[in-house]
Amino acid sequence: MTIKALAFDAYGTIFDVHSVIKLCDTLYPGKGAALSQQWRTKQLEYTWLRSLMNAYVDFWQVTESGLVFACKALGLALSDENKQQLMNAYLHLTPYADVPPALQRLGHLPLAILSNGAPQMLNDVVANANLSAHFVHLLSVDTVKIFKPHRSVYELAPNTFGVAPHEIGFVSSNSWDVIGATHFGFRTFWINRGKQPLDELGVQPYRIVSSLAEVADEVTK
Amino acid sequence: MTIKALAFDAYGTIFDVHSVIKLCDTLYPGKGAALSQQWRTKQLEYTWLRSLMNAYVDFWQVTESGLVFACKALGLALSDENKQQLMNAYLHLTPYADVPPALQRLGHLPLAILSNGAPQMLNDVVANANLSAHFVHLLSVDTVKIFKPHRSVYELAPNTFGVAPHEIGFVSSNSWDVIGATHFGFRTFWINRGKQPLDELGVQPYRIVSSLAEVADEVTK
Repeated sequence: MTIKALAFDAYGTIFDVHSVIKLCDTLYPGKGAALSQQWRTKQLEYTWLRSLMNAYVDFWQVTESGLVFACKALGLALSDENKQQLMNAYLHLTPYADVPPALQRLGHLPLAILSNGAPQMLNDVVANANLSAHFVHLLSVDTVKIFKPHRSVYELAPNTFGVAPHEIGFVSSNSWDVIGATHFGFRTFWINRGKQPLDELGVQPYRIVSSLAEVADEVTK
Repeated sequence: MTIKALAFDAYGTIFDVHSVIKLCDTLYPGKGAALSQQWRTKQLEYTWLRSLMNAYVDFWQVTESGLVFACKALGLALSDENKQQLMNAYLHLTPYADVPPALQRLGHLPLAILSNGAPQMLNDVVANANLSAHFVHLLSVDTVKIFKPHRSVYELAPNTFGVAPHEIGFVSSNSWDVIGATHFGFRTFWINRGKQPLDELGVQPYRIVSSLAEVADEVTK
């Protein structure tokens, strides 16, 4: 197996999107987990729906819309100040603990982020986590104006790396993203941190692992 | 306002998809509501994901996949017999109580179902509820091999009725479906039976009502 480059999903894979729970819970005591969950669910739904409706807006707007809906659905008042604080938290997400050491070990390969995130969001969240030095490209769906799992998004990686899809390792914790990427033709790694069942979409990832360390084990051996 | 024809979403609008809760609860005591909820959530997710991946399979298969995933996620064993019973329940969904009398009042207009459902599913669920006489067309996404809210689906109605989109009333209880249909150009009615907030997708339906009776009030006055 020769993997010549690696592309990583950002939200949920490198960064823990539920690292906003603490702030959610400070602003809405006892409701942090529910708000974080609903927010994430709607954020994803809106990427799929807007893509199918051919009504793209960037991930910053989709993320804000998901937050507004989640607060309405849970009966929580969303002041401008709370909204600003919560959106700002999206630029300061915590990387999972296994991420920084594994990225270090993978430094012999060109690494990229391939994400739904808007360019400025990706730039900020990666920089704020001190991970910028690891990535040669931060690839955003904003270039193609449609979200994952549309194949136009995955095509950004081979086009940018100048490497064929089957020589690119793609890493995501989102089962549906890994399935879309496998369907596209990448060598895929599903980081199943939560021990979830695989989505039933008729596609098996190349590898199922429990942390980014296992990806580094496989690719560097 | 001249509405010359009406198209109705089926699942969640005419038929209560959670009418399977009772059977779910008989087969998995105490887990009926959770299973029904997860099943429906995954069923919808899979329609969006498969559409974006250009990997269409029909709604029967998507519904079965959603059931398989939901059982795995909840740790419930799904025997072949249980699967068959639960899938069969999808052909015998209960119409909401406000539906039959309102369809009766709307009989002066051509009425159609416009649904994600596979043709045989639609035929069976409508016939089993004794509603076949009300509809001149049962329009299925299976003709275009992509699911809602892609515009190819909504185009089936004007093409079949021979009536312009803005002269067609479209009725759905699914907020995202109503938004897709509004974006397409229909005169839309959102039946918000559950008093939910509207999805934050930048589009307002033509009317928000609480039952199909209100649609009949508006269209027949």
